Amino acid sequence: MARIENGQAQYRTDILAREEPLEIKLAYGPRGQRQSRSLAVTMRTPGQDEELAAGFLFTEGVIGKAEDIKEMRHVGDALAPEARENILLVELDEELPVDFEKLNRHFFTSSSCGVCGKASIDMVRSVSCYFPRRNHPLIHASIVQAMPEKLAQQQALFECTGGIHAAAIFSPEGELWMAREDVGRHNALDKLIGAALLQGQIPLRGQAILLSGRLSFELVQKSVMAGVPILAAVGAPSSLAVELGEEYGMTLVGFLRGQAFNVYCGVERVIF
Amino acid sequence: MARIENGQAQYRTDILAREEPLEIKLAYGPRGQRQSRSLAVTMRTPGQDEELAAGFLFTEGVIGKAEDIKEMRHVGDALAPEARENILLVELDEELPVDFEKLNRHFFTSSSCGVCGKASIDMVRSVSCYFPRRNHPLIHASIVQAMPEKLAQQQALFECTGGIHAAAIFSPEGELWMAREDVGRHNALDKLIGAALLQGQIPLRGQAILLSGRLSFELVQKSVMAGVPILAAVGAPSSLAVELGEEYGMTLVGFLRGQAFNVYCGVERVIF
Repeated sequence: MARIENGQAQYRTDILAREEPLEIKLAYGPRGQRQSRSLAVTMRTPGQDEELAAGFLFTEGVIGKAEDIKEMRHVGDALAPEARENILLVELDEELPVDFEKLNRHFFTSSSCGVCGKASIDMVRSVSCYFPRRNHPLIHASIVQAMPEKLAQQQALFECTGGIHAAAIFSPEGELWMAREDVGRHNALDKLIGAALLQGQIPLRGQAILLSGRLSFELVQKSVMAGVPILAAVGAPSSLAVELGEEYGMTLVGFLRGQAFNVYCGVERVIF
Repeated sequence: MARIENGQAQYRTDILAREEPLEIKLAYGPRGQRQSRSLAVTMRTPGQDEELAAGFLFTEGVIGKAEDIKEMRHVGDALAPEARENILLVELDEELPVDFEKLNRHFFTSSSCGVCGKASIDMVRSVSCYFPRRNHPLIHASIVQAMPEKLAQQQALFECTGGIHAAAIFSPEGELWMAREDVGRHNALDKLIGAALLQGQIPLRGQAILLSGRLSFELVQKSVMAGVPILAAVGAPSSLAVELGEEYGMTLVGFLRGQAFNVYCGVERVIF
């Protein structure tokens, strides 16, 4: 790698964030009639693949609880043994109904009822089980402000590569409980929620989640699925993200930088 | 919206980046046997939907040239007339073969040959038509450094919302030819490449593309499809992004901020 500064080049080695595809395969159906099929491929930073898969399946509404997954394992491929670490087979419970017609990139895609922001929000409502409690938990503004710095101290990969997204769960007292990193911001959140799911900690009713990037509809949707009441991001939210957060009575924080931040909805949970 | 600064709240209205789903539907097949089917839903900032669809179809390898598209129009839905602006029907040429088995989120997904970074790169090779010419074009380091500032001057939405990604085409002399914005960084690049395609400007052999965010495998892949030799980003690249750029003889620039930037491959095109 050449670092070019003021017209001068310095040659050095650089540590890059790893990015590899992960194929998530599902095995499903009753005994004797088991089928397996590829559900999705995502470009991710290798590591914590089980958490990523569990979080993805949960936030997309494929599974409803950790027990719906019986086993997860990396599987080989006769033609490409080197792909083994990039294919994860998820054995689902025999009783779990799986409708591949409904499962695709965005779980609401190609519904015959058309597509609009309102339909997207309706669709979340049809699969989500958790609504946060009003005015709970409360969080002090100074604790919100301190969250990015605490996350930065934990972000080992970002330190090295500068090229990675992070998501973290905080208590309302400002304690960082868990953080996950990935080249993809959806993946970082899926890993985080998947880890909480596998530890029996969903819904995250009394917690806050911090995201290192922007706040899109899909990130709010995933957080709704996890039942978290407070979602904060270093970047800006989109219009539909705020609509969804309002609909679910969430507290949405954006532009969380330095001594200030914006609260787009649910300001009643913030003490200042 | 409440802006909370040093424990004080100010209430104001805020302009947010719009985000709405776009469903891309394809109509294909010979006359008398036309079929239509939903290909993908993407969360995008409304506007330039035709460019987005054209760019997406081209960079995913569904179409090979602008003429493969006969017509694009927003279509209504009897059940949800408000969804009209979020569904785009693309009429493909009757002769164009469309294989839905091969078309999914990542165009290389669920191939029976397994999945690994190498397979991902191989798959790009199988669909890409353009290799950049060695040592062409040359670009001066000072011109690379000036690109982000020139893009910022054009980024109207970012100015207002702070929440939007941008992609732009520059000449090697530093002239900004075209810029596109979107809440999604893939969409910003698809809109840009789609606009170039619809204007008959693909391949972008003598140009550079600047991206406002990080440099992932998929963004490099889309750029490879467009035949652009120089790709620069404000953020960090991933490992697989650099592997793909090297494979294709591209010049990849990252961490383009202030007076410095990194060149990960193809440094021979940079004059300093």
